[in-house]
Amino acid sequence: MVAEILCVGTELIFGNIVNTNARFVAQKLASVGADMEFQTVVADSEEYLKKALEVALSRSDVVITVGGLGPTSDDLTKETCAAYFNKEMILDNKTLDDIKAYFKKRKITYTDNNSRQAKFPKGAKIIRNENGTAPGCAIEENGKLIIMLPGPPSELEPMFIKEVIPILSKRSNSSYNSKTLRMYGLSESAVEEAVKKVIDMKGNPYVATYTQEGEVHLRITSKADNASIARQTTDNAAKILQELFDQNIYSVDDRSLEETVVATLLKKHLTIACAESCTAGLFTAKFGSCSGVSAVLKEGVISYSNYSKVSRLNVSRITLETYGAVSPQTAEEMAIGVVQNLNANVGVGITGIAGPNSDNTHKPVGLVYIAVFYDNNTTIREYHFQGDRDKIRSGAVTAALDLVRRVINGII
Amino acid sequence: MVAEILCVGTELIFGNIVNTNARFVAQKLASVGADMEFQTVVADSEEYLKKALEVALSRSDVVITVGGLGPTSDDLTKETCAAYFNKEMILDNKTLDDIKAYFKKRKITYTDNNSRQAKFPKGAKIIRNENGTAPGCAIEENGKLIIMLPGPPSELEPMFIKEVIPILSKRSNSSYNSKTLRMYGLSESAVEEAVKKVIDMKGNPYVATYTQEGEVHLRITSKADNASIARQTTDNAAKILQELFDQNIYSVDDRSLEETVVATLLKKHLTIACAESCTAGLFTAKFGSCSGVSAVLKEGVISYSNYSKVSRLNVSRITLETYGAVSPQTAEEMAIGVVQNLNANVGVGITGIAGPNSDNTHKPVGLVYIAVFYDNNTTIREYHFQGDRDKIRSGAVTAALDLVRRVINGII
Repeated sequence: MVAEILCVGTELIFGNIVNTNARFVAQKLASVGADMEFQTVVADSEEYLKKALEVALSRSDVVITVGGLGPTSDDLTKETCAAYFNKEMILDNKTLDDIKAYFKKRKITYTDNNSRQAKFPKGAKIIRNENGTAPGCAIEENGKLIIMLPGPPSELEPMFIKEVIPILSKRSNSSYNSKTLRMYGLSESAVEEAVKKVIDMKGNPYVATYTQEGEVHLRITSKADNASIARQTTDNAAKILQELFDQNIYSVDDRSLEETVVATLLKKHLTIACAESCTAGLFTAKFGSCSGVSAVLKEGVISYSNYSKVSRLNVSRITLETYGAVSPQTAEEMAIGVVQNLNANVGVGITGIAGPNSDNTHKPVGLVYIAVFYDNNTTIREYHFQGDRDKIRSGAVTAALDLVRRVINGII
Repeated sequence: MVAEILCVGTELIFGNIVNTNARFVAQKLASVGADMEFQTVVADSEEYLKKALEVALSRSDVVITVGGLGPTSDDLTKETCAAYFNKEMILDNKTLDDIKAYFKKRKITYTDNNSRQAKFPKGAKIIRNENGTAPGCAIEENGKLIIMLPGPPSELEPMFIKEVIPILSKRSNSSYNSKTLRMYGLSESAVEEAVKKVIDMKGNPYVATYTQEGEVHLRITSKADNASIARQTTDNAAKILQELFDQNIYSVDDRSLEETVVATLLKKHLTIACAESCTAGLFTAKFGSCSGVSAVLKEGVISYSNYSKVSRLNVSRITLETYGAVSPQTAEEMAIGVVQNLNANVGVGITGIAGPNSDNTHKPVGLVYIAVFYDNNTTIREYHFQGDRDKIRSGAVTAALDLVRRVINGII
């Protein structure tokens, strides 16, 4: 089953919004074993939508359209599909009653243009929308299936899970299984070179590498006649790759680096406190994004000025004068200083030059020192990040997370 | 000029990541007056990429490819485009040197497969990448222009702004001028209703409303035969809308809210210190993202625990016991407490419940108090944000930035 997503909306074409729907639908299609090769976005225009539909149906068995089911005149998906298959539009009285009830319940005035949402191509299966006024529908013709869904995620997503997944599962004749191994500290090319020596990346399972923020992710995808064989194929490959990369891998379950670190701290009953200079709170905020973090994250100090480093973190003036604010010595004293107030178990100190200009010491932009204090020891690392201010700051945050992971797991 | 975005990547096709690049490129294409009808995403496959390229070139003058320029064997964009136009791939020695230097500087081992990134279709204009190892390139053939760019946003975005915009501006035969008025504190529908009364939003200039993180942006776009008329048309509309929304507008020059606040603090010679609870550093980090911020940002304290609020910020135990950590009283004491250490001029206190669960007081998830201390006065506001943890936290950050802006400008 080759499936294709066709999103309809001028707001996507002009970049007014991000296409999160394509991601959602793609993940769900992958979960029922659909092959996917293309996605298309098209402006709200009958002419372009017709063209896009022709192209999509020429190369895919199933086309999922998203958007263009609203009540206004630029919502054209159902009408265009109906015309494409030479079908007339038929009013469904049950749906019309539902729409009127929906308006009444929300005390919004029903206007006649809303009745368009109760019309469907003749013979279509109606897909109910419990969270809005735009029902979807499915039509099948000459072995091709088109499923039309509304654009608002809060409407699309429950409809997809409740009604579309069962339709597609029936059509799918193969199962897929995926697993992603996430790691930090190696380059994408080095990872690929190493993987190729132990596994055929283009075979089944198929192995792809992705990078983001200094991380490399290895995605293993297996295809089989049934789910159990697909899972077994993935697991076998994962085992080989886990042996290969060992403790460079921080997660095998799609957990982010920060979630992994928080989970490890929780498991080990450790608390953490963070002292940040160039990252200015970004590192602590990454922790804060994990729910339940309040059991491990006690405190953070953002010391942008030297005075703050001295008064809040007990960094010595002599250290600052001798080595500068951006130095391994200052990073270490920040890491040690920040744990003292609350007696946290792990202290992190981050100091660096995010740019665009250096400080008065002419140290290079991108130079960052990260120190992790734990168990009466401090581990300090020097990094050189490239790119603009944001890239240097986010590079430092990821590096610090990984360094904490390594230190508390004893893999330094 | 009809332009089309062609994103390459199996990670998009399978929904592993959201296609934020399409949005960025679409917005930039719109800004240079490109007409757009379609966007395509294609898996990392020579066969499918060739098909997608054929379809895109049959309907558009300019095709922007994004992705598939990495060093690994599934990065095929340049090779596929070269084959499509019957061009050989040529090694560019200057680029190779740049790549080797990039690896050396970051102390990562250079592997031979990285040399692929220094090869380009014969005759291509090379687009330098200052933030990574994958340069882009542009080739023109039979009046069709293909511009190939890398996928990581931190590489793509500066390359697009610096090198692609000038190439496209030359090709465009009508002039466009855009201006965005940014505001916070009004709903999108209220803004639209008000605009409609004074201006035809669908005319020339065309006025579109966008929302993000509680902000509403009004984008005015004018089209004319020459740049000066287009600019004048935009400016006339901007003047009407600035009178209408007055001090709700925080920027008319694409400056972000944080940049606006930092610029105002600099201009008024004010320093700021921030005390955060639920936002856990995100607010201070927003400041930290602005270059030159060290002149205004002195310090931040992330007090996740009550003990930290007391010991670092002098919040009184009685306040915490009587009103709770999430209360206007605690927010005020945090804002006042954080300025004391460094004698900063402006103090910010943020405390709230980011969820997914409430604290032991059963206060609702999404409740946030923000206090701004300035000039011996504290301004405190109560907010109710909806959505998940991330949405509540980023909503609080934007609200706090706007509250600081209003307080220091005396528009409370």
